[in-house]
Amino acid sequence: MIELDRSGGTEFIRLLYLKIECADKTRENMDLLDKTIAKIESQDKEWRGRAKERLDNLCMPHWALGRLMDLAVDLAGMTRSMKPPVQQKSIITMAGDHGVVEEGVSKFPQEVTPQMVYNFVRGGAGINALARQAGARVIVVDMGVAADLSDLAESGKIIDKKVAPGTLNMAAGPAMTRQQAIASIEAGIEVAESLGRDTDIFGTGDMGIGNTTPSTAIVAALTGATVKDVTGRGTGLDDAQLQHKITIIEKSLQVNHPDPNDALDVLSKVGGFEIGGIAGVILAAAAQRKPVVVDGFISTAGALIAHALKPEVKDYIIAAHRSMEPGHKMMLAHLGVEPLLDLNVRLGEGTGAALSMNLIEAAVHVLTGVATFAEAAVSESE
Amino acid sequence: MIELDRSGGTEFIRLLYLKIECADKTRENMDLLDKTIAKIESQDKEWRGRAKERLDNLCMPHWALGRLMDLAVDLAGMTRSMKPPVQQKSIITMAGDHGVVEEGVSKFPQEVTPQMVYNFVRGGAGINALARQAGARVIVVDMGVAADLSDLAESGKIIDKKVAPGTLNMAAGPAMTRQQAIASIEAGIEVAESLGRDTDIFGTGDMGIGNTTPSTAIVAALTGATVKDVTGRGTGLDDAQLQHKITIIEKSLQVNHPDPNDALDVLSKVGGFEIGGIAGVILAAAAQRKPVVVDGFISTAGALIAHALKPEVKDYIIAAHRSMEPGHKMMLAHLGVEPLLDLNVRLGEGTGAALSMNLIEAAVHVLTGVATFAEAAVSESE
Repeated sequence: MIELDRSGGTEFIRLLYLKIECADKTRENMDLLDKTIAKIESQDKEWRGRAKERLDNLCMPHWALGRLMDLAVDLAGMTRSMKPPVQQKSIITMAGDHGVVEEGVSKFPQEVTPQMVYNFVRGGAGINALARQAGARVIVVDMGVAADLSDLAESGKIIDKKVAPGTLNMAAGPAMTRQQAIASIEAGIEVAESLGRDTDIFGTGDMGIGNTTPSTAIVAALTGATVKDVTGRGTGLDDAQLQHKITIIEKSLQVNHPDPNDALDVLSKVGGFEIGGIAGVILAAAAQRKPVVVDGFISTAGALIAHALKPEVKDYIIAAHRSMEPGHKMMLAHLGVEPLLDLNVRLGEGTGAALSMNLIEAAVHVLTGVATFAEAAVSESE
Repeated sequence: MIELDRSGGTEFIRLLYLKIECADKTRENMDLLDKTIAKIESQDKEWRGRAKERLDNLCMPHWALGRLMDLAVDLAGMTRSMKPPVQQKSIITMAGDHGVVEEGVSKFPQEVTPQMVYNFVRGGAGINALARQAGARVIVVDMGVAADLSDLAESGKIIDKKVAPGTLNMAAGPAMTRQQAIASIEAGIEVAESLGRDTDIFGTGDMGIGNTTPSTAIVAALTGATVKDVTGRGTGLDDAQLQHKITIIEKSLQVNHPDPNDALDVLSKVGGFEIGGIAGVILAAAAQRKPVVVDGFISTAGALIAHALKPEVKDYIIAAHRSMEPGHKMMLAHLGVEPLLDLNVRLGEGTGAALSMNLIEAAVHVLTGVATFAEAAVSESE
């Protein structure tokens, strides 16, 4: 660190220095993102084959445990193991705010984002209750909440990765800079890397008032879907509010022209910090060859960004549940994944991921805890 | 007990005595069945209302945890509690054989039924693996296996409620007598009563080669559905085998004329001992005001019998999952219940029930472990 004289004469040098530092920082970040992307490989076919062979011979009618068996094959392929570890479960709930809320796209005021972060920390939210049931820990990350949460960060109750106190209004211009987009993904990678030692399976979650709006813009931008086909009622908009939301998303896409072939451009122009963070968690999980349970609509928007950066991440994604947002179906089709659950859940926070973790654990039990026909001395079918 | 002279002269008296004993036994059984039925009441509306009021105010968009919240209301209404106990979980796997297998309706030989009972006892079956994951115990009951399982019963590894060593061939006449039908339901009641002290939530399961055939006949008999619309491939029949199965079921209904207004007549003519046992477990659970998770196709056939005997049992039934058998949809519609899961599972044994138990526990956590807006000091929507 060079000590700089802040007097007027050195102002030019200071600016130059900052520019260099910024460029360095960008390159370093790009390095982490690039390095992470480079580590991601498809599922291992040989391990998939081994799992399938065992499951083919379990003492039951062929493939009678259906999706659990498909999942067991995937888990073996991801983890390169016939005993895929899934005991240590971490759900990472990413919080961020959205400038676009000034357009009136949500029924809840923006102050709810930090209020819910406090609620997460106190253990009183939906995700806390469901994570307790699933035996998962919840890690809350401030990716860009428009409030000072330094007290929670300093006491270690949340992880501070605040890129900025909320995005800018995407209906008027880019939600964030390209550098901020990279920083948000990178922050997600860092969080998932720091948790890696104690995590067998990741879950993603989100909190951010207004964040179905950028998520909808992302699915429209990356898949070419018509905005009105993929826009939903979020936390409960009426017909007029829904129409207004559609108009705002259409305007955001017209103003920003996100490049569908450039995920970072899409994220920066119509994304959110927590969505970038979720993309980072997904990339890092895939780089660690660990399953990542992607929650609902907002998390799947993050998965779309991650997938656009590295299509092989799909091999590590487990879609938790079918969201009630209409755009979710388009997202899942784009990724080529089928959700495990369909329970009219539309909360986010990682709740769908928590609910799915028991099923994933059950899939491992099928692979490891059921006898084959030969082992059980049971007669096979004709 | 009167000591009887078995010499020829007293043969008439002996037969008379046996007839009286049999009549007494029947009356006693009918008493238990009647008493159980008489105890069953609908869910409590007041407790449902209390649960709904709390859930309406949880710090989340209204009813954002969807089916889990519906389930929480049901559990409060069943158990008359705002903290519905679900920790002690018992899955009762009922095994029985079917005379109709001599018509060639299953791909597996009948010897698989006892082989699988041994597999359950050793802990190597699908239900064992999934029950371990769910923290449930598995209780295996011999309701009518066509093999001597007395070694397992004597060592306490299974419960012996064998009504007979398999039903008769229902394509040639009634599968069992009316007395046996009552005895099978009664046995299920006795099992559930004996487990009641250590059980908060029951799950049902089945094992019986050929038992999709009587289950299909039951749904056709009780709902009036056309046999070919509700007949499926069971453990994996091909097209010709499926057509043969349809013919056998049609023949069984024509030969026996089960009375759709008399559940005991339907069970006796085209049912099975394990199906009667499952009906008994469901009735006893409802009488105990406890939830009973009904597994798949065979278990739901048992639920249809229980429902025909006492429609209010529906209030205590949680449908675990959507079976791949086409008749299951008709059964669920008849009962007016929606399954929680749809995972292409078609194993039976209670596996779907085991998989659902975590979701039910999650529903309780939503009711008991999430703060309201007021408790969490979170701003509500407009």
